[in-house]
Amino acid sequence: MPEKNRPKVVIFSQGDEVITGATIDTNAAYLADHCRTLGFDIIRHITVADELDDLVQVLKDIDALADICLCTGGLGPTQDDLTTQAYSKAFNTPLVFDDIAMTMMRGFFDKLNIDMPEVNRKQALLPENSTRIDNLWGTAAGFIGETNRCRFYCMPGVPYEMKNMMQTTVLDDLRACFKVQKPRLITLRTMGMGESAIQQEVDKLSLSDDIRVSFRAGLPENELKLIFPSHYVDDAVQRCIKEVQGVLGGSVFAIDGFGKAVKNLPDCVHQLMIEKQQTLSVIETISQGGIARQCDVGWLQQSMVSPRVSAILSRFGIDNADITESLAVEIATKEHEQNDSNITLVQLHHNDGDDVIAVVAVVSDTSHTSASKKLTGRLERKQINASAQALNLLRKHLIENDYATH
Amino acid sequence: MPEKNRPKVVIFSQGDEVITGATIDTNAAYLADHCRTLGFDIIRHITVADELDDLVQVLKDIDALADICLCTGGLGPTQDDLTTQAYSKAFNTPLVFDDIAMTMMRGFFDKLNIDMPEVNRKQALLPENSTRIDNLWGTAAGFIGETNRCRFYCMPGVPYEMKNMMQTTVLDDLRACFKVQKPRLITLRTMGMGESAIQQEVDKLSLSDDIRVSFRAGLPENELKLIFPSHYVDDAVQRCIKEVQGVLGGSVFAIDGFGKAVKNLPDCVHQLMIEKQQTLSVIETISQGGIARQCDVGWLQQSMVSPRVSAILSRFGIDNADITESLAVEIATKEHEQNDSNITLVQLHHNDGDDVIAVVAVVSDTSHTSASKKLTGRLERKQINASAQALNLLRKHLIENDYATH
Repeated sequence: MPEKNRPKVVIFSQGDEVITGATIDTNAAYLADHCRTLGFDIIRHITVADELDDLVQVLKDIDALADICLCTGGLGPTQDDLTTQAYSKAFNTPLVFDDIAMTMMRGFFDKLNIDMPEVNRKQALLPENSTRIDNLWGTAAGFIGETNRCRFYCMPGVPYEMKNMMQTTVLDDLRACFKVQKPRLITLRTMGMGESAIQQEVDKLSLSDDIRVSFRAGLPENELKLIFPSHYVDDAVQRCIKEVQGVLGGSVFAIDGFGKAVKNLPDCVHQLMIEKQQTLSVIETISQGGIARQCDVGWLQQSMVSPRVSAILSRFGIDNADITESLAVEIATKEHEQNDSNITLVQLHHNDGDDVIAVVAVVSDTSHTSASKKLTGRLERKQINASAQALNLLRKHLIENDYATH
Repeated sequence: MPEKNRPKVVIFSQGDEVITGATIDTNAAYLADHCRTLGFDIIRHITVADELDDLVQVLKDIDALADICLCTGGLGPTQDDLTTQAYSKAFNTPLVFDDIAMTMMRGFFDKLNIDMPEVNRKQALLPENSTRIDNLWGTAAGFIGETNRCRFYCMPGVPYEMKNMMQTTVLDDLRACFKVQKPRLITLRTMGMGESAIQQEVDKLSLSDDIRVSFRAGLPENELKLIFPSHYVDDAVQRCIKEVQGVLGGSVFAIDGFGKAVKNLPDCVHQLMIEKQQTLSVIETISQGGIARQCDVGWLQQSMVSPRVSAILSRFGIDNADITESLAVEIATKEHEQNDSNITLVQLHHNDGDDVIAVVAVVSDTSHTSASKKLTGRLERKQINASAQALNLLRKHLIENDYATH
């Protein structure tokens, strides 16, 4: 359950272009991410078309429902820009001409050597008693208005203008008006275990009711998120993490949010490669550059990409061979002898009906390891899983080997 | 005003990952685009977190508001997947075990050689009297349920699964259940005229009230959309378009939706280049590859990209010169003599305080044309406008010159 004292936020994106799907709503995700960081409870995203009656109704609904509304869109100079008018109608608030908004707008047009068109005048009309949010990046001033329950932050829909207004004015106002004890988000990043299987294991644990458990299935990683109320101390959080990690076993490749931030598997590998000061050469087939793309230019020395395995084999003077882990180790070893990298990774594959068996080998001066995996589904899925399999093996290799650091 | 007989649609995207901004809601835009094509009236997009009480309330609200609900998310096997349970509670509909959903799900796990985890069982529980939507691409069956007013289409949140279900089942059902006389959308694509100026010109016209006028400001194009009710005949639409085009003058570079589809300026240029069977060579500076990127491999032969103008000048043995239109024509002519293209385009620039003056020249065997433009604002804006200016000059050249076609 979300804590009772967390302010409730509605994110409101207006406009025909959003509601018809002509534009993907990236503003909502951006604003939501900030709200999450601030510890707010985001209860709705709503989008409405440029229809005055609908806008008025939705504004009233939001006022009854939320403490904060972050609203974007509808502040332009054209006839379908209706936010200010709708706000005025919804809350019986007269609109007042704001001289400073007007002056700033004139200045914007002056810089372009254009006479300010008369229609832009409406952008200087703001609700009485609202606080203007200056727009240094476009013509429409925004405003902060307090109605019955809800504090409305109305900003332009243009992402560049909105983000600047957030950074310059709105975030400070939110922090000043709404102090929150943030809940704590811990993400266990897993691979190789389906979300159903994870659910079943977690079910066996009977975690405390006030810990919110949430799943995010992805490709190739599945995330298990644990959200602890702010009053949980480090020890309690750590005990819980250990308990969950215990039932999920080797599928947890990183824990994000408890001391360390780890975004995903490539980030995990990157941090290890940097810490251990290793360099890497790659030969890859079915992943078709996917492994290289997820490496970092700081330690990836090269990747030979060849979608067909036969081209790799002939390069090493091998005509015909079963594609096995030991073949991958053999090729990786030969390649390793010829290059300057600390580690060499080779990924090969062969077909198995509609499926593919991917084999991967990781070789260093002192050790080697290998793995096989059956890849199913459409090609893109196979390719993503092939890259992940390779990176995961590299990760294990880095953890299990002792590299002297300088 | 939207026509009264158009079904009202709410698009409902569930899930913590969407509401927290961890995932951008691409499903909503995809579904909205289909609804627009079908002629439906999209009245809301709503997103809610994985909270049972909120879900129940929103489902009830939607039922009161809309004829159709396209709902994605919340059909997975984990504890935060609550759609079916919420639907059951909101509409007092018992859940019934669906044998076929179960059989298909077992089959899905069999292919992976995995025992189906018990927790997945809940995905085979569907509302009584609903119609199952088969999922051949994942484990969760969807369903179509009719409640009081609204027909609910509940699908998984995974885009790949949802899109396949739309294409295979849902679109057919929507077309069968909701026949609509589609309104007609005409888009006048303009460049070089601000949306305020467009609004002012349109205001002078007193268009009929039943024509919906809508603006979409973008960079570098501004769109003026006219939406005509389905009863308007071709002649009436054409007269109106001509009237509007008359007041907007040369800023309209394409009309999209009346006989022809033209997506944007690059598409307009592409159609002309294909029609007139021309090829192009480019030299570009401040656009930094932006012109080339918007051309088509079918007719762009090369683009020399050099962010610094001096490198271009020295290539043509010019040490120091004022960057003028005639210099651009001179360089384009010299380049044209050396290459095999039908048309050569050269874009240069020089600084003017914080601003940039971009000059562009287009040269063919028989004619040449050039233009200058002041570019303002941040670098990305300048670059986008520089590319647009170049393509627009090319467009004018193609229209004004008679090319024999075979």
